[in-house]
Amino acid sequence: MKIFEHISDIKEYISFQKVKGKTVGLVPTMGYLHEGHASLIDRSAADNDITVVSVFVNPTQFAPNEDFASYPRDLAADIALAEAHGADIMFTPSAEEMYPQGYNTYVDVEELTQGLCGKARPTHFRGVTTVVCKLFNIAMPNRAYFGQKDAQQLAVITRMTRDLDMDITIVPCPIIRETDGLAKSSRNVYLSPDERSRAVVLHKSLCMASEMIANGERGAQVIRDAMIHTLESAAPTLIDYVEIVSADTLTPIAALAERVLITLAVKFGNTRLIDNVIVDIQYLEE
Amino acid sequence: MKIFEHISDIKEYISFQKVKGKTVGLVPTMGYLHEGHASLIDRSAADNDITVVSVFVNPTQFAPNEDFASYPRDLAADIALAEAHGADIMFTPSAEEMYPQGYNTYVDVEELTQGLCGKARPTHFRGVTTVVCKLFNIAMPNRAYFGQKDAQQLAVITRMTRDLDMDITIVPCPIIRETDGLAKSSRNVYLSPDERSRAVVLHKSLCMASEMIANGERGAQVIRDAMIHTLESAAPTLIDYVEIVSADTLTPIAALAERVLITLAVKFGNTRLIDNVIVDIQYLEE
Repeated sequence: MKIFEHISDIKEYISFQKVKGKTVGLVPTMGYLHEGHASLIDRSAADNDITVVSVFVNPTQFAPNEDFASYPRDLAADIALAEAHGADIMFTPSAEEMYPQGYNTYVDVEELTQGLCGKARPTHFRGVTTVVCKLFNIAMPNRAYFGQKDAQQLAVITRMTRDLDMDITIVPCPIIRETDGLAKSSRNVYLSPDERSRAVVLHKSLCMASEMIANGERGAQVIRDAMIHTLESAAPTLIDYVEIVSADTLTPIAALAERVLITLAVKFGNTRLIDNVIVDIQYLEE
Repeated sequence: MKIFEHISDIKEYISFQKVKGKTVGLVPTMGYLHEGHASLIDRSAADNDITVVSVFVNPTQFAPNEDFASYPRDLAADIALAEAHGADIMFTPSAEEMYPQGYNTYVDVEELTQGLCGKARPTHFRGVTTVVCKLFNIAMPNRAYFGQKDAQQLAVITRMTRDLDMDITIVPCPIIRETDGLAKSSRNVYLSPDERSRAVVLHKSLCMASEMIANGERGAQVIRDAMIHTLESAAPTLIDYVEIVSADTLTPIAALAERVLITLAVKFGNTRLIDNVIVDIQYLEE
């Protein structure tokens, strides 16, 4: 696996590969790779001639009060994992490389970023879309792989790619979970043993919601109330949101129909966890 | 010359040309082409295998009180001019093609767009950078050509291209003038005969500034005052700004040094005219 730190070097290398007709898959990450990332790399390696994994803890997607400084990092382990799963290139730029002096340009997807995580993190998605736009221009991928765990991020990036006429297929990949159901996340390491065991309630509440829907419930408020009740049983520090929205537009819906995203953000201590499930009501009713 | 109205069609055609190794030059315009545009097309045709001219009166760069509806249009004349100057492709999308339902993404260059024209037109450059980003992704040019007349636009697009790691060379092209010195502009048709003759004062004041500098004057305020005095002699409706700024950062400077942009915006009636000159002080002093 080749490792590049400089934009000009990786661009030169990938341009040369593209001239030769090679297809490129990109897996953008903030490092501290886990099985969720591994599943994206596996998928990219299966789909493309060349798989690029970027590892960059992007400062512009953290607010000043967030965990940029403490975000877990382990480049040696990331290199080993990416290589083992078939990555061909790792891109590990510095913040100065990505945001040189005088850096001034931001990409914003407006409406989709107002609700859900955007409420508590109003500058987060602007940081995400900007760095992903840059990574797309740097790695020139045919396909880019994102986990369904960050459902809003996936919707926002899909919209950006369409709106800005980028020739890139966004490939959503399923959530990978621990054996007890907790969605894999680099931030899970922040949890104390007690918080870790209580955190399984996110998945539990989503399973309960799916079950209610399978049993015919279509009222969003009824499902939401039941989820909040379940979440509260684990005494979280904060229930940031529990929302039932259209999977495509992310707008709240009252009566469930078509593709529905049930999504939540909950804090245990200082650790903010997110999880979600997509339910295709039409499919259920066929 | 091929004419495309749909993004998917032009992308498919240009992708095919690029696979064959052809280089592409892009001349983005709002149509109503004049000799200024012709000089950009000439230059692109000389530099590249394929020259794409886009003609799109971009609604997002006009404020509600501006001249979007009345902006002059003459597609038949544009086609004739572009073809005569060696364009290979014209791209004439509709607003619905460029901004489909649910369109939500904007590209913003922040600091460079605050002053000069950005003061009177606070949403203008966001519209410009967004549409140019889209046009870059659609036409996939190796080089893109912009007139120095829109000096701030040129600086903003150059910055966007660098910041977002786009593999595109921005080629600045000199201002083309009428025989009496008025900078060519599609908006010149708005001027009454009387306004048209008075409008030559923009160029006159810039020439005077250059002469003062050549004679050793280095004080920005002295030069500005003299320019405003000259402009007032033609009784404009409004002097929007007369500024002396660094040509690279667009920040105002008090004592002239290095590359200086002397730039102004003046209204005659409802017609807002801009003009500028770049003076390389270092070169003068060698």
